[in-house]
Amino acid sequence: MLNDPGPGTTRSLGQLISELHRLPGIGPKSAQRIAYHIAQMPAEDARTLTDAITSVKDLILFCAECRNLTDASPCDICSNPQRNQDQICVVEESRDLVALERTRAFRGLYHVLHGVLSPLNGIGPEDIHLPQLFGRLQREDNPFRELIIATNSTLEGDATADFIHRRLNGSGIRITRLARGLPVGGTLEFADELTLSRAFSGRSELE
Amino acid sequence: MLNDPGPGTTRSLGQLISELHRLPGIGPKSAQRIAYHIAQMPAEDARTLTDAITSVKDLILFCAECRNLTDASPCDICSNPQRNQDQICVVEESRDLVALERTRAFRGLYHVLHGVLSPLNGIGPEDIHLPQLFGRLQREDNPFRELIIATNSTLEGDATADFIHRRLNGSGIRITRLARGLPVGGTLEFADELTLSRAFSGRSELE
Repeated sequence: MLNDPGPGTTRSLGQLISELHRLPGIGPKSAQRIAYHIAQMPAEDARTLTDAITSVKDLILFCAECRNLTDASPCDICSNPQRNQDQICVVEESRDLVALERTRAFRGLYHVLHGVLSPLNGIGPEDIHLPQLFGRLQREDNPFRELIIATNSTLEGDATADFIHRRLNGSGIRITRLARGLPVGGTLEFADELTLSRAFSGRSELE
Repeated sequence: MLNDPGPGTTRSLGQLISELHRLPGIGPKSAQRIAYHIAQMPAEDARTLTDAITSVKDLILFCAECRNLTDASPCDICSNPQRNQDQICVVEESRDLVALERTRAFRGLYHVLHGVLSPLNGIGPEDIHLPQLFGRLQREDNPFRELIIATNSTLEGDATADFIHRRLNGSGIRITRLARGLPVGGTLEFADELTLSRAFSGRSELE
């Protein structure tokens, strides 16, 4: 259906549907719906959209320090002297950083890996921004006393956390990981067994 | 969150997220995910996407006859002498036409309304492509013997079907509507009452 738009559709619409379908989370039905919406939106709105895409492509680069997406390097966070310079939090993706920033629970620095280790998919340490992380930690003047691993609680996220932990073990830096347990508002009844056993083994003293 | 991208995001990413969020079916999370994907996709892929959008905006127009979106008017269907010239099927949106074409069940002509009557939202007959439909049917040389109403089975779709029916009643043209009933593969147990009662009243003789 995507390569041949079929009767009733035009080549240009078929092409747009196929391009939209390549974006993450956009299935063929959504792609079609969005393409028809674009075809009928005011020309200036479509222009605003293409300008926004072009402008992101023109402006966005990796921060030389934390590898977050930024339009100035070092980024706002790395160049902010108010942030705790001795804590570094490792996340998989920029949007994980954004999610953590929204909590305001962390005021240190970050490192964005842009991926996770996944031997099955042929993704090794050199394929994500791990060498840059180790580079930062190996500098003589590095200020870090704690490295907080905030990879996802998945097989790959765990493997990446293990890899970083083994690599840095004994280097003197404190290595921590985000707590796993019941989500806030979650009930025991509906928690899966692994979450429940993690919540159990990670239980803490009531004060 | 959308107007203020917040810490860790840039203004250009915030702008793109906000533009993507305006597209149908794209929530704030999807918009963010797609924006970060675009920020990291190869420049030539982003260019292909913006070109596809621009090309749709440059090329697409309404067919002067059926009002379908096309890049040449009259469209492929209206100008195809192989199609039954005496049947006209009225649909709400271009994508309904595409869905019907995919079934290959109908070989006549179409009329696309680009909307439905919705008094609550202030949408009357002049706001959708109804005058053009009546214009086609009033022409002396119009070939139509059957008008098939294929609006959705919703309140607005029904109201629009009623309106067309009342307006054309007595004009000599046969007016039909798509059958309502159990979806193929559907079970009685999970059908809603209205569907079930429609399926019942529309029952047909086994031959």
